[in-house]
Amino acid sequence: MIYAELISIGDELLIGQVVNTNAPWISRQLNKAGFAVKQITVVGDLEDEIINALDLARKRADIILITGGLGPTKDDLTKQVLCKYFNTHLVFDPQAYNDIENIFRARGREVTPTNRTQAELPASCIPVYNKNGTAPGMWFHADGKVFVSMPGVPYEMEAMMTDFVIPKLMQEFKSTPVIHKTILTQGIGESYLSDMIAEWENNLPEYMKLAYLPAAGMVRLRLTGMGESKNMENEMIIETGKLKKLIAPYIYGEEDETLAEIIGKLLRASGKTLATAESCTGGNIAHLITSVPGSSEYYVGSVVSYSNEIKKNELNVNADTLLRKGAVSEEVAIQMAEGVRKKYNVDFAISTTGIAGPDGGSEEKPVGTVWIAVADAEKTIAKKFLLGTNRMRVIQVASETALNQLRKLIIGQI
Amino acid sequence: MIYAELISIGDELLIGQVVNTNAPWISRQLNKAGFAVKQITVVGDLEDEIINALDLARKRADIILITGGLGPTKDDLTKQVLCKYFNTHLVFDPQAYNDIENIFRARGREVTPTNRTQAELPASCIPVYNKNGTAPGMWFHADGKVFVSMPGVPYEMEAMMTDFVIPKLMQEFKSTPVIHKTILTQGIGESYLSDMIAEWENNLPEYMKLAYLPAAGMVRLRLTGMGESKNMENEMIIETGKLKKLIAPYIYGEEDETLAEIIGKLLRASGKTLATAESCTGGNIAHLITSVPGSSEYYVGSVVSYSNEIKKNELNVNADTLLRKGAVSEEVAIQMAEGVRKKYNVDFAISTTGIAGPDGGSEEKPVGTVWIAVADAEKTIAKKFLLGTNRMRVIQVASETALNQLRKLIIGQI
Repeated sequence: MIYAELISIGDELLIGQVVNTNAPWISRQLNKAGFAVKQITVVGDLEDEIINALDLARKRADIILITGGLGPTKDDLTKQVLCKYFNTHLVFDPQAYNDIENIFRARGREVTPTNRTQAELPASCIPVYNKNGTAPGMWFHADGKVFVSMPGVPYEMEAMMTDFVIPKLMQEFKSTPVIHKTILTQGIGESYLSDMIAEWENNLPEYMKLAYLPAAGMVRLRLTGMGESKNMENEMIIETGKLKKLIAPYIYGEEDETLAEIIGKLLRASGKTLATAESCTGGNIAHLITSVPGSSEYYVGSVVSYSNEIKKNELNVNADTLLRKGAVSEEVAIQMAEGVRKKYNVDFAISTTGIAGPDGGSEEKPVGTVWIAVADAEKTIAKKFLLGTNRMRVIQVASETALNQLRKLIIGQI
Repeated sequence: MIYAELISIGDELLIGQVVNTNAPWISRQLNKAGFAVKQITVVGDLEDEIINALDLARKRADIILITGGLGPTKDDLTKQVLCKYFNTHLVFDPQAYNDIENIFRARGREVTPTNRTQAELPASCIPVYNKNGTAPGMWFHADGKVFVSMPGVPYEMEAMMTDFVIPKLMQEFKSTPVIHKTILTQGIGESYLSDMIAEWENNLPEYMKLAYLPAAGMVRLRLTGMGESKNMENEMIIETGKLKKLIAPYIYGEEDETLAEIIGKLLRASGKTLATAESCTGGNIAHLITSVPGSSEYYVGSVVSYSNEIKKNELNVNADTLLRKGAVSEEVAIQMAEGVRKKYNVDFAISTTGIAGPDGGSEEKPVGTVWIAVADAEKTIAKKFLLGTNRMRVIQVASETALNQLRKLIIGQI
């Protein structure tokens, strides 16, 4: 097994101002590629501590991935420290400068002298170019070990890892063959899933391991097969097949797809269109849908109807229904979905109305009560969900649940 | 300065299954109490690695706080390793057992033999009792240093820290006073800020330090004062005042506020209302606004007008303007803002129209071109922004920029 270590650099991590989400992201990518992470170290922007962390990490691992401390300002030391550590000096890199110019041009600005220095890279490193930011990464070899320094900005680091670092690591090291299969579920908690599949999980061969990866509103199940077994591919298919049978009603997809992407594919394939009417989710469903490139092909828009006036005036929700049943009710959810479907002249519609909290709950309708409706030309289906008391979680889970309800409607599962 | 180090134990952290939110939480509490965190180390559930991490941490710091690995199952090793490390043995602790019994009673269950072993604690430790779970914490003294082991379950650890660990640390160590001031900026990059304040930054007293904390569309500047200076509080106010003068046009707030929260406060204070009309931001502005509890008091809703039909039919955008100028234009942004303001009968409105990419760009209007308009009863102000080529970044920066434009309009800064 080839081991890796992560070093995250930045005072902001040590005072707790920023949560280190880079480390788990990188760990997941390394795992998928067949490398194991031995240790994660967080140090401040201080030369001695960075050097000390590098010395210790190289004793334990073959791959050392470093993030952070590459900004143009003087509190960022990583590049200078690496120069010293690898006994080299800075040289101007025209391609890195070209990348920086492009970034500034796209933002309609001129490169500043401070940013020009970001194109200076240690002479002995292989540059890892950055299409999304001004700080290039650096790849060093020493004693048969690899050190890669990347920016701390997540989407800059993630693009470097995906496009360059992971493929090059797999080329340079013989990683242990690893196969992952990921099954995506929605609408069921981790512990219930665990009870449903306990027997299957206990009987898995020793070289297979299941991980539960919960997020707001969904749980991903990742089955990992590791080692040299000849039949691995085949055995993984068999075990994944068994798993899928056990939890079929909760599966919405496989591997890395999001619900918004799956819905996009279904709508595009059938040439159908979609609109949304959001109350408690407040535009988050629209945001998830429009985060998918090309969504304007099938998504026309949303009425975010936070006030009752807008529910009445724009979505044709009945004033009497609002009065008698309240805004958070089956009837209003149905009228909202049907209202936006007709108004925006689309094939499918989603609506949400609920109490995200922290205030507004009652005995009868506690915080976390959400009605979700999905509609097409033939039918409208509304369902009530109870989603807990954390406002952001209610919004997120309601949004993903609504997208899954639509997916089921499109494929005729409800 | 008294230094602390954190050791987080658990395989789930090394495969990226769980994000380490305990470490930043603990860091914030230690900082507030005047202790500095020097390093955070994440290791797996392995005896050698835990012992190695303890050895290294005690060389660098006086306080070592350990979380995780205290569960009742055999993959959790921390208690056994600590017994070995401090050369002691387990003894049954009646009060810890009493806590465990209470936890089980509240769930209507009997204590299992496995859980009974959790009441066994190292003879040489001071127990840190756990009112919220079955694993007690442990406080050790060695060579004038303090080691505290706590469970990894956040709310169990947090209660122990607040009720026992922080007060006892402040009693045992004389902590250094630390003051943080954070200034929030929008609409200017890190490197430009750095150029504008270079002289001031270079002249800061030695015991003050500035950190740049960039996120999509904004940069937080955190000034930290540390040490025994009698006038620290006063000097921090003076230096923060100088900083604010230098970059006044870019400041939108202080400390931990979000733009959506600031706008909420302004609108609530004046009893004014808001609506939005979003094209390229696709509902994300509505999502940010409605993430703030109580936003229904001032926010009525949004027209997410992804299609041109909806721009025309719902927002009264002129068909001829769309044809002549295109959807991404100053005129359309203005008509959208004014359209939604009238339609939804509100005091303020925001609109966005742009090209989030990756497709849809042209020479004249490249990907990342976004027009943002803000309107009140007297005027409508539209401005063009070039926000780069990453779709998610364009959406995020455009959303924060739009909120800041609104803030400026409300307070009469534009």
